[in-house]
Amino acid sequence: MEFIEELRTLKEQVKFDKGIDNAESFGNVVIAGMGGSGISGKIFQELYSKKPVLAIDDYHSPEFISDNTLFIGISYSGNTEETISAINEAKAKGAHIVTISSGGALEKMGFEHISIPSGLQPRSATGYMLMPLLRSFSLADDQAVERTYALLDDLDKDNSKCMVHAKRIATGKKIPVIFGSSPYRSVAMKWKTQFNENAKVISYANYFPELNHNDSMALAHTYRKKNLYFLVFESDSERIRQRVEITGEITDTNFRIIKPKGKSTVEKLFHLIHYGDYVSYHLAGIRGINPTDVSIIEELKKRLK
Amino acid sequence: MEFIEELRTLKEQVKFDKGIDNAESFGNVVIAGMGGSGISGKIFQELYSKKPVLAIDDYHSPEFISDNTLFIGISYSGNTEETISAINEAKAKGAHIVTISSGGALEKMGFEHISIPSGLQPRSATGYMLMPLLRSFSLADDQAVERTYALLDDLDKDNSKCMVHAKRIATGKKIPVIFGSSPYRSVAMKWKTQFNENAKVISYANYFPELNHNDSMALAHTYRKKNLYFLVFESDSERIRQRVEITGEITDTNFRIIKPKGKSTVEKLFHLIHYGDYVSYHLAGIRGINPTDVSIIEELKKRLK
Repeated sequence: MEFIEELRTLKEQVKFDKGIDNAESFGNVVIAGMGGSGISGKIFQELYSKKPVLAIDDYHSPEFISDNTLFIGISYSGNTEETISAINEAKAKGAHIVTISSGGALEKMGFEHISIPSGLQPRSATGYMLMPLLRSFSLADDQAVERTYALLDDLDKDNSKCMVHAKRIATGKKIPVIFGSSPYRSVAMKWKTQFNENAKVISYANYFPELNHNDSMALAHTYRKKNLYFLVFESDSERIRQRVEITGEITDTNFRIIKPKGKSTVEKLFHLIHYGDYVSYHLAGIRGINPTDVSIIEELKKRLK
Repeated sequence: MEFIEELRTLKEQVKFDKGIDNAESFGNVVIAGMGGSGISGKIFQELYSKKPVLAIDDYHSPEFISDNTLFIGISYSGNTEETISAINEAKAKGAHIVTISSGGALEKMGFEHISIPSGLQPRSATGYMLMPLLRSFSLADDQAVERTYALLDDLDKDNSKCMVHAKRIATGKKIPVIFGSSPYRSVAMKWKTQFNENAKVISYANYFPELNHNDSMALAHTYRKKNLYFLVFESDSERIRQRVEITGEITDTNFRIIKPKGKSTVEKLFHLIHYGDYVSYHLAGIRGINPTDVSIIEELKKRLK
């Protein structure tokens, strides 16, 4: 499948409606996943706080895990060594385990399993991995899904603004810097990883208001500022919008504001994700880079065996 | 106080032995703090996992907070608006609240309070804010503190290696990139913020193994790689050390390995922190930048009123 076709499946992915029964009956939730398979847990962690939720991206699981823990292990391939290790540790602690994958070892571990369609790059399958989390915890309903579908479809038809950003980034060989804010901090991180994996450029993400306590000083005085390209998500919060505006002014930094479309959080979330998909995809195209190539990641896995 | 004198107080700070009584009796822990006052909560979150711990750096507190929550609000000045807002939300939910500050509004809120010495920049007071957390949860004993003191003292006397890194960074006007790994991921973040606030340069931090799922592709193919300077913490884990070595090889990236000194996690943690203090301090010196200046952060606060 061409990479652009992969990206265009996102609107179908948001219709994926499998979920976990009684997900809200546990005392806490731990979600393990790496890279493109881990970002959905991180996004979920920002959206749901009725219970302690911990998104992990390493070999080990926290000590507090018990039979009162819902542990969700996500790996698109089903074969990620860190995730498998974390699941095994959670199993030893008696957690209720649910796995999400398109096949691989995870499917065969014998836990409650959500099977998702295969054939995509993990980073193109965020909808398949995020929607079960949103559905299980009542964070997305059919109406939001329908409106999200329409917004993503619009972006598939016209993403010329994404091309404008990509061209500016490519022309100056600029390092994309993405500043988000809650509940879209992990979406800024998702943009960064899309720049890394699709366009193969180094990229940096942070979020307001935290960055006002550190990056702000660098923005005002750093060398190489002209080598950076600042993309900033418009916040729902008036206070954060003030921070963005004042920060841009007093540090003399040109923030390109990305305005998410949609009424609900789910719509804005996916609109922002898809917007970043296209900026990174176009940047790959301009650079003459194959966005599908992840040979270095594969080579590492082979040499680690 | 000269900034170098501030940095040299760290070894005394690790002797700070005030703690929270019965800290381990709560079901979960939430720690609120921003910037230099927030990093201690993030470091603690990596070290302690017997209970769900959430380090937050925003205006809002999670919904799950109850009378079974130990909520620790940390602000060096005691006047950070995000932290005060989060504390008030936690209070409304019935949490047991402890505040840590050197004065300001936090001290006057009427909660259980740990008073720490004033007169430092928040980013120079990590020991005062981190030690109460480590002590309260039995993560540091007198012996570890003594050994840490000695290690920090050695670094105060000879930090010439830090100067070598600073010179290389300054000469090439390079962007420092710091790669950590558990349990020192937040220390890599701390280095980044020290580069931001002390040396006023933009900087980027990430951690193994997660970065193998995204940054790796960029490391192999990005433009501007020669503008980056890679500092990588040596891991305690053999598997992570393999990842670091192979990643450097297959992406043809020159990782400068920083080897933490000490036996225990606490020693290594503070040794790494202090090492980063000195690299950023020397970089400020070479750049002719006042490391104490945080005028932009202050200006923002004034204009937000």
